[in-house]
Amino acid sequence: MLIRPAASLILAITAASYAQAQPPAPPVPPSPTEIVGAAPAADWVAIAPADLLVMDLAPAADGAARQVVIQLLPAPWSQGWVGNIRKLATAHWWDGTAINRVQDGYVVQWGDPDAEDKAKARPLPPSLLSVSQGAYTLTAGAAPALEGPRIADGIYAAQARFYHGWPIAMGQGEAPETWPVHCYGTVGVGRDMPPDAGSGAELYAVIGDAPRQLDRNIAVVGRVIAGMEWLSSLPRGKGEMGFYRQAAERTPIQRVRLGDAVPGLPTWQYLSTASASFARYADARANRRDPFYVRPAGGVDICNVPVPIRQKP
Amino acid sequence: MLIRPAASLILAITAASYAQAQPPAPPVPPSPTEIVGAAPAADWVAIAPADLLVMDLAPAADGAARQVVIQLLPAPWSQGWVGNIRKLATAHWWDGTAINRVQDGYVVQWGDPDAEDKAKARPLPPSLLSVSQGAYTLTAGAAPALEGPRIADGIYAAQARFYHGWPIAMGQGEAPETWPVHCYGTVGVGRDMPPDAGSGAELYAVIGDAPRQLDRNIAVVGRVIAGMEWLSSLPRGKGEMGFYRQAAERTPIQRVRLGDAVPGLPTWQYLSTASASFARYADARANRRDPFYVRPAGGVDICNVPVPIRQKP
Repeated sequence: MLIRPAASLILAITAASYAQAQPPAPPVPPSPTEIVGAAPAADWVAIAPADLLVMDLAPAADGAARQVVIQLLPAPWSQGWVGNIRKLATAHWWDGTAINRVQDGYVVQWGDPDAEDKAKARPLPPSLLSVSQGAYTLTAGAAPALEGPRIADGIYAAQARFYHGWPIAMGQGEAPETWPVHCYGTVGVGRDMPPDAGSGAELYAVIGDAPRQLDRNIAVVGRVIAGMEWLSSLPRGKGEMGFYRQAAERTPIQRVRLGDAVPGLPTWQYLSTASASFARYADARANRRDPFYVRPAGGVDICNVPVPIRQKP
Repeated sequence: MLIRPAASLILAITAASYAQAQPPAPPVPPSPTEIVGAAPAADWVAIAPADLLVMDLAPAADGAARQVVIQLLPAPWSQGWVGNIRKLATAHWWDGTAINRVQDGYVVQWGDPDAEDKAKARPLPPSLLSVSQGAYTLTAGAAPALEGPRIADGIYAAQARFYHGWPIAMGQGEAPETWPVHCYGTVGVGRDMPPDAGSGAELYAVIGDAPRQLDRNIAVVGRVIAGMEWLSSLPRGKGEMGFYRQAAERTPIQRVRLGDAVPGLPTWQYLSTASASFARYADARANRRDPFYVRPAGGVDICNVPVPIRQKP
């Protein structure tokens, strides 16, 4: 909302005095945030530390630590790449690599800055799988049933729903394909030209409007659940496609680990997308009835229903 | 695209040697960028300097100038607020104000940091109009016919098209409403709770996924056409809704002027949304057929067809 804190305070006071002076007013419809805040503990699902990727960037100029926490996409989608990413993290492969590209309104990309230079490129672990572009989607037979509210995406998918906390689109036909969609904060696998599908060593995060054209054309493998601002606020690159021109402009990556290798990591939880709380939240995202809003939209894009994620209270 | 420049080079070489060895290959479908690059000069429309708002932020830490150029929304939409913004710029009202709020994935907001403090608030020019929330939309009778390709928005609007270079949504019914939509880089008028509709002194720019819920709930008045990175890469605020907690965290605004008051401003142009070039561009945005893409999406959101804008060559 675009009000200031002071304004919300004013609202609260007005509502209170009104309640004293008048018969009880009709209840104020809750905001999506209020609905999430009222969700029972049973609606929150813990994220296994082994399904987190923790990336420590070099500290900011003011010395602030810059830790980015990424949740990996659950089975069955993109698991060839997700498996490679687990191997790369376990091998400490990203330690000493860098963020090499920041294209405004599009993506932040990281990996080996010398990947294109055979002489200097960092060798990949031999055990990495080579995954085909056919694996960008799964047909219904190979994929679980989706859950939660059906979102009218309306762009290309017959429907967009959720699976274990993730937005998933489903195509048309008798055996429709399903695929994870790109939203703000989505992490995907950078690749070269087809048929290359990428190994998982080169990753990007979306920092702009949902790039729907990338769905089914590149592997979605995760999403940033904490520290997004350390990626989205980086200086934009002035080279082609936002690549930095000078090595000194890159942001060094100190280390990347799976969450179960990071001592003292807090427990993260997502709001079950099969829960009644989530259904109420999604409805409120599509139809804002809280006091700031004059006209509920009557619909919402799948990316405008971000799955609530929190540290376990 | 998520390939590296070196990779596109490899592609070009391969294509060339193939052409020598084989009968001529079918033409490679152009990318949206290539379609825009091939548009004839007649398809580009100059933006009047008087329709630009030029905001100079304090220089960056490294001394870099930070100039943000905003194009104001043309008539007939939101003109009450746009008129106020012209008066505020002419009165140099924003000089010495600041960017006060940066909420990741949502908005950057600027104006008088003391607006809520009656004792310290900067007085507004008395000639500002008070505009009603009813002015967020126009009914078809009061609005011109839309132009350009029809975009399947599919979220709430019967259709989304364009008018003189701007994305406009149109509702259902016999006398449908039309309204400008929020996209990445859209500039709107911050406001307090209804019935307040804002004066135009408090502005925001979208730095995340298109906040469709704001359409018809807040006034769209422009879009950032240059210097977006100076807003989108600012440190995120740690206070409520991304407001900065400390005054020192704010980014000072040195001055805001209408473009016709800025000597030496380059001529900006937009690609006519009524042109055949734009129709080809929009089709290519919805159906990427250039070599990087495996599966054209078959559709596109209105915000994923950003109207091409350039400096006059």
